Amino acid sequence: MQRLTGMDASFLYMETPTMPMHVSGLYIYDPRSAPRSYGFDEIRAEVERRLHLLPPYRRRLVEVPFQLHHPLWIEDPDFDLDYHLRRAALPSPGGHRELAELAADIHSRPMDRTRPLWDMHIVEGLEDGMMAVIARTHHAAIDGASGVDITVNLLDIEPEPAPVPPPEQPWKPDRIPSDAELVAYALQSLSRQPVSAAKAVRRSIETAFAIRRRNREPDVNPPPAPFAAPRTSINRAITPHRSFGMAEIPLEDVKAVRKALGGTVNDVILAVCAGALRRWFDDRGEVLERPLVAMCPISIRTEDQRGALGNQVSSMLTSLATDIDDPVERLKVIQDGTKHAKEQAGAIGAEAMTQWAELAAPAVAARAARLYSRTRMASRHRPIFNVTISNVPGPAFPLYMAGAQLQAWYPMGPINDGGGLNMTVMSYLGTIHFGLVACPDVVPEVQALADHLHTSLEELVKAAEVASTV
Amino acid sequence: MQRLTGMDASFLYMETPTMPMHVSGLYIYDPRSAPRSYGFDEIRAEVERRLHLLPPYRRRLVEVPFQLHHPLWIEDPDFDLDYHLRRAALPSPGGHRELAELAADIHSRPMDRTRPLWDMHIVEGLEDGMMAVIARTHHAAIDGASGVDITVNLLDIEPEPAPVPPPEQPWKPDRIPSDAELVAYALQSLSRQPVSAAKAVRRSIETAFAIRRRNREPDVNPPPAPFAAPRTSINRAITPHRSFGMAEIPLEDVKAVRKALGGTVNDVILAVCAGALRRWFDDRGEVLERPLVAMCPISIRTEDQRGALGNQVSSMLTSLATDIDDPVERLKVIQDGTKHAKEQAGAIGAEAMTQWAELAAPAVAARAARLYSRTRMASRHRPIFNVTISNVPGPAFPLYMAGAQLQAWYPMGPINDGGGLNMTVMSYLGTIHFGLVACPDVVPEVQALADHLHTSLEELVKAAEVASTV
Repeated sequence: MQRLTGMDASFLYMETPTMPMHVSGLYIYDPRSAPRSYGFDEIRAEVERRLHLLPPYRRRLVEVPFQLHHPLWIEDPDFDLDYHLRRAALPSPGGHRELAELAADIHSRPMDRTRPLWDMHIVEGLEDGMMAVIARTHHAAIDGASGVDITVNLLDIEPEPAPVPPPEQPWKPDRIPSDAELVAYALQSLSRQPVSAAKAVRRSIETAFAIRRRNREPDVNPPPAPFAAPRTSINRAITPHRSFGMAEIPLEDVKAVRKALGGTVNDVILAVCAGALRRWFDDRGEVLERPLVAMCPISIRTEDQRGALGNQVSSMLTSLATDIDDPVERLKVIQDGTKHAKEQAGAIGAEAMTQWAELAAPAVAARAARLYSRTRMASRHRPIFNVTISNVPGPAFPLYMAGAQLQAWYPMGPINDGGGLNMTVMSYLGTIHFGLVACPDVVPEVQALADHLHTSLEELVKAAEVASTV
Repeated sequence: MQRLTGMDASFLYMETPTMPMHVSGLYIYDPRSAPRSYGFDEIRAEVERRLHLLPPYRRRLVEVPFQLHHPLWIEDPDFDLDYHLRRAALPSPGGHRELAELAADIHSRPMDRTRPLWDMHIVEGLEDGMMAVIARTHHAAIDGASGVDITVNLLDIEPEPAPVPPPEQPWKPDRIPSDAELVAYALQSLSRQPVSAAKAVRRSIETAFAIRRRNREPDVNPPPAPFAAPRTSINRAITPHRSFGMAEIPLEDVKAVRKALGGTVNDVILAVCAGALRRWFDDRGEVLERPLVAMCPISIRTEDQRGALGNQVSSMLTSLATDIDDPVERLKVIQDGTKHAKEQAGAIGAEAMTQWAELAAPAVAARAARLYSRTRMASRHRPIFNVTISNVPGPAFPLYMAGAQLQAWYPMGPINDGGGLNMTVMSYLGTIHFGLVACPDVVPEVQALADHLHTSLEELVKAAEVASTV
């Protein structure tokens, strides 16, 4: 039994029927590399064999009566693997489009909170004999980085499945605690809270002053404040439906751009997204009053938290400089912006973020989220940001599931009222995979936007070539 | 713009995330009879051509602020046929089991109330080259009988699609009324309600007395009172998941039983279900303290309401006499019971039922349903009934969709907290199709129960043969 951190629990509180808060991944495997026959049963056996390496897979939530405190994880006494693994198939021709539609449909469905918060659809019927897996896990259990850890624990680094070390001790399901026990335990923890509250307040005030001082210094170009983002057609209350777009670009192209034009890999990725968004709004004839603002989650996982589960994230707001015509100039402004944004996010500090989340009263937070969603408030005020762009580094070496090589790994993030588009980026095996999740009623034609990523990259690659030869 | 009747709206109020209130149908078509190629596009074209014959398909709900009154139907200005028609496929081998799993999964998903409340999944990959359609419509828009009318309007009576009469006037979308208009309109209607409330109360009191008088007469065997049903393992709070079982039996066997042993076709169907349930509880080693009680919806549609949409239903509670060993005796007790139950349902009267539903305050009803569900109250009190058994008569002649003959038509009803099993029965083309919807966490192995229906029928057929030769 283990209480969720406030940060993990916040993903439960902000969840509404139109805004489920899980993350998904679309994995494509090549069964030709598998030493034996390949299908649902082989994948099921592999997951079962590794369950003890995947703690969130057998844990379920227990909510505290009257939402007195954050929920608890318990080892689920009713755990049933067959509930979590599902077979599915694509209609013909089983191409890119059919796969995107299925992934979007699965990603849009809410999860049952009375079960461990994950599932996998094993998908047949892909046109080239490939096999797809669409895996979902609730954000309350993992963030981008711990999600990658889970995947890597589930997979092998060679076609022949490695022997799995046995669990140190046999798995023991918990008893479901009674309401009385839950209340008593919650009150006990809450009685210790006033002290931490005082600490969090003091530290946040100190931080606010430090940021203000820094932003007033002459050399500083402060990052966009919340609500400085322009109103756009994509920043409205969302519906429960989802669409999904995919693109992939070579990591070496991104590196070449970085080498010639400066900045980080992440800056180049932001610039590629910025260029695609610029074109896409242009196609729609939509004129934006100001440059688009992206929200980028940043991992605040310290080196000794590596391998720890749950969420360790903060975020930065950064301008995408979509008002600038020249792609090289645009990249430079983005570089400059992220440098300061990261500094500020660092100053706010992991500790304060975590403490504030810890103190949020569950009942109030959940009610506020539902009210915000029901009243469609997001359609009324200026957006906090325009688009979520999340960059998750994945492994650079090939992975195998029961012998089949992982070919492609597209991430799928959550979207929210006011932010109907999530562009998550996953690097794997020398390729950068873009997974674009959108609300189709707010962001039409998300695949057209994904296609523009190629054009946007080409522009930068050409500029880099020119810069290198000069 | 049209206000929902209280009865139609009650299916919205009682809906919760674990208890969606739509009805579905699993249709299997044989494309070999189609004059042309057959697939998603042909079905889409056929639906589009007939939209004007299917009023609920272009209507969406508008909820009144603060739930002051029942919601309204408006002709949806954002209607988009492509949202409602979806492509799907079965994993191999595409048999009975894979089909049942997909149907259960689709049936379990809640519908988006901001769209017209229907959809159809067109399913490829059936092992014998057949094509399946899984169609869902919210119970607020149709009941069993009006559901059949919709299907018949959508299909043809011969392989060559008939010319469709054009709409009398072109379809005109409504404007979405403002909150202020909705409130004003609701208050206006509510101001007329006190009169009808007084009438409903008087009529219900009169009816209650009439029933009590009648039940005290010496020849009367009163039907089971609510809460007289035994506690069983299947009468608990349900989860959001569904399973689906199917069986079909020849109508002529049922008629032979009826001829030899008396009663109605419906009585024989109830007896077939009773025998199967008896065996199924027996397999589980579960001893019931009393005979099982079935809730049977009855159509209160009058002859001049034929073709009208929405709900015109009442219900009767009837004993399934599962304490009786001999199938012929069991059938006789069922016959006797339904005769009186129907009489009583007739006395309560369509008018009173409809009036009471009209008066239910939407906000209170919806809150009560959510509270009942959240607190899992259904697991605590004695069930009102044990199982829903609904018999919907369908056409006796073959139907065609874009040229492909409808082979089988399995109905899927809703289930509810305390009643985790729905056995809906649809007759079509000389065959009686059983669709069993269950919560798998409460009713395990629903297909085993469906298989017992065959054994149960055989018993009755044998008894009928004996009776006929005596």
